[in-house]
Amino acid sequence: MLPIDPQRMLADLRALAEFGKMGSGVNRRSLTPEDLASRDWLLKRMRAAGLDARIDGIGSVAGRTPGSRKHILIGSHTDSVPKGGWLDGSMGVIFGLEIARAYVEAGLTDDPGVEVISFIDEEGRFAGLLGSAVFAGKMDEGDIRELRDERGESLESALQSAGYAGRELLRFEPDRHAAYLEAHIEQGPVLETAGKRIGLVTDIVGVSRCEVVFTGQADHAGTTPMELRRDAAAALYAFADDFARFCRNEGSDRTVWNLGLVRLEPGAYNVVTQQASLGVEYRDPSADVLDRIRRYIVDHAGRLAEEHRVSAEVVPGAGILPNPMDESVLGHLEQAAADLHASSIRMPSGAGHDATMLAHLVPTAMMFVPSIGGRSHDISEDTREEDIVLGLKVLARAVERIIAPS
Amino acid sequence: MLPIDPQRMLADLRALAEFGKMGSGVNRRSLTPEDLASRDWLLKRMRAAGLDARIDGIGSVAGRTPGSRKHILIGSHTDSVPKGGWLDGSMGVIFGLEIARAYVEAGLTDDPGVEVISFIDEEGRFAGLLGSAVFAGKMDEGDIRELRDERGESLESALQSAGYAGRELLRFEPDRHAAYLEAHIEQGPVLETAGKRIGLVTDIVGVSRCEVVFTGQADHAGTTPMELRRDAAAALYAFADDFARFCRNEGSDRTVWNLGLVRLEPGAYNVVTQQASLGVEYRDPSADVLDRIRRYIVDHAGRLAEEHRVSAEVVPGAGILPNPMDESVLGHLEQAAADLHASSIRMPSGAGHDATMLAHLVPTAMMFVPSIGGRSHDISEDTREEDIVLGLKVLARAVERIIAPS
Repeated sequence: MLPIDPQRMLADLRALAEFGKMGSGVNRRSLTPEDLASRDWLLKRMRAAGLDARIDGIGSVAGRTPGSRKHILIGSHTDSVPKGGWLDGSMGVIFGLEIARAYVEAGLTDDPGVEVISFIDEEGRFAGLLGSAVFAGKMDEGDIRELRDERGESLESALQSAGYAGRELLRFEPDRHAAYLEAHIEQGPVLETAGKRIGLVTDIVGVSRCEVVFTGQADHAGTTPMELRRDAAAALYAFADDFARFCRNEGSDRTVWNLGLVRLEPGAYNVVTQQASLGVEYRDPSADVLDRIRRYIVDHAGRLAEEHRVSAEVVPGAGILPNPMDESVLGHLEQAAADLHASSIRMPSGAGHDATMLAHLVPTAMMFVPSIGGRSHDISEDTREEDIVLGLKVLARAVERIIAPS
Repeated sequence: MLPIDPQRMLADLRALAEFGKMGSGVNRRSLTPEDLASRDWLLKRMRAAGLDARIDGIGSVAGRTPGSRKHILIGSHTDSVPKGGWLDGSMGVIFGLEIARAYVEAGLTDDPGVEVISFIDEEGRFAGLLGSAVFAGKMDEGDIRELRDERGESLESALQSAGYAGRELLRFEPDRHAAYLEAHIEQGPVLETAGKRIGLVTDIVGVSRCEVVFTGQADHAGTTPMELRRDAAAALYAFADDFARFCRNEGSDRTVWNLGLVRLEPGAYNVVTQQASLGVEYRDPSADVLDRIRRYIVDHAGRLAEEHRVSAEVVPGAGILPNPMDESVLGHLEQAAADLHASSIRMPSGAGHDATMLAHLVPTAMMFVPSIGGRSHDISEDTREEDIVLGLKVLARAVERIIAPS
């Protein structure tokens, strides 16, 4: 029904990868010259496809099929992490472009039509999920004005330079947007390991972060007897080990965690550590599980602080609540995969995605295609071409099912 | 018998603290302008005391009482760590100056006389214990030429600028040097905690260092299942915790250790750690104990690497062998304390000192005076004036006992 053209989609995907090209990947952080050029290109491709398209006041790009009053929104992001991969985000946007283009070519103007969107700055040069948060009404223009990148450049000045400042913002429209669909590379090894080609995302896990800071006393590490030390690092090592054990034993079978950030002060062979900070991140689809882990962190840091005669502080960090996907839209994706004899499994998304911001507003679903070796956020990121093409076909088939339920 | 003058000693100590003065401490790293000025001052004070004195080819300063063919060497160092204390090293040198001065004033020219020495760079701008290592013949001029400070300045150019380059080096003379005595602040809380005023150093502990490096694989910390991760940080935390337990249970009652250096790569909340390095330092008076710990490190790092599916490498670092002090010289110090009704305890030195370099060459002993709050290597370092004065009296009494055995 929708005359999608996989070769045309692949050509667009490869053309997009030329912007900020770095080896086999891309270096295209949001609002850099490479990113701005890619947005102009995307706008032109949308218009060439016959879509009503524009770039909004923060740089998100959207185009909708004309004639319809309701639209199925298909999107993701086209910015990358520094030295990132060519598919992360971009694939989902180009899938949306191809499906909207096919919709126009099919001469359709009924409800719902198709709208494709590239949300700005999913990767967080200024703020992670920025474009989708603004689109979803979770950030206002005041919040935006405060944002700066890690070098101190303000979002406002970047938008001024880009010529986007002052334009109207694209916003979620409850009366017009009927569903949100996002295709993405998996960024992990589950599909490859399981030998499946389509991942049906049941939920996007919640992510919690905090910093556990132990404060003791710096002392000469040769002359201070062990029993008189107040060693902040010793408390940190004990905490890290115990935390992993707690998550393994008391978390759910889907709990994952990482302790990838340590800072010791003063940081010397021969000085007892005065301050030791540990960055803690943990993810689970259940808010209850996340809360149980949070309470353990606070309680156990306190217990270990007492034991090691140091003090403990737990500084809460950014967090994202778990987001279940919509079962009816997910069912369309599942049936679409079955229609095309594509092997699929239901799985959670361990990474955050723009879909997170839409899930509470509109029926939302996501699908994954396999990542070779599970790699992403690196120029080595890739997906077999037949998996990309199958992903497009499954997504288009799901859209067909939503447009014209059989 | 030796007409020491505590007030004159204190005046010299305070005058020395003016060079590089920083609040209540000093900032006087070796061969900086402040340090060079202090060496000129020290040379003048030695000559004013009637000593045959000179500064040698690397900046060590020594002065001996004239007339004798054998000398008791008394010394320490006058350089400081950055933002260091006023007593660390300096006190021991000024004690030696006062005792040599009293020897001359007493009209003595018998054997043994007294020689006072300030060894260059004990604190390691170029190399820790540099002056005493050269004096002891453990470094030759070739070794010296290679040395650079952390900013890349060579020792050679610093010596050129100072005007010391090319001068003859002061060396240990087995036929002339009868004993080495060093008084020092404790740099720890043992004397204060025990309520004692004189520490009789039984041995200087050995210090071993290594870096334990675990290498795994960087992965997305949300999308990579726990059982597929090769998390170098997880291995590090387990190692750190186990190492402390091993030292506590299997070390001697004098084993101390510190794990004050951690480096995680790439170091992010949401990336599994690819490489985790832990700086390990441990001290014990027994070479056997140090060796047992070293073997545990290598074995256990390997075991944990296997368990965590990472690799482990143990990179050996600098080390100092344990050095027992000479029992007969220590006995003179102990008896001197008893003569003066000064409370004393025998204790090891957990820190390295210039005495380490002399201990295998000549009967060597050290004594400590209490550090207030155990503080050192900081401008807050201090010792009660009556403890400094008592330290001088005990050291002078010990010299008297050696000169004229009763």
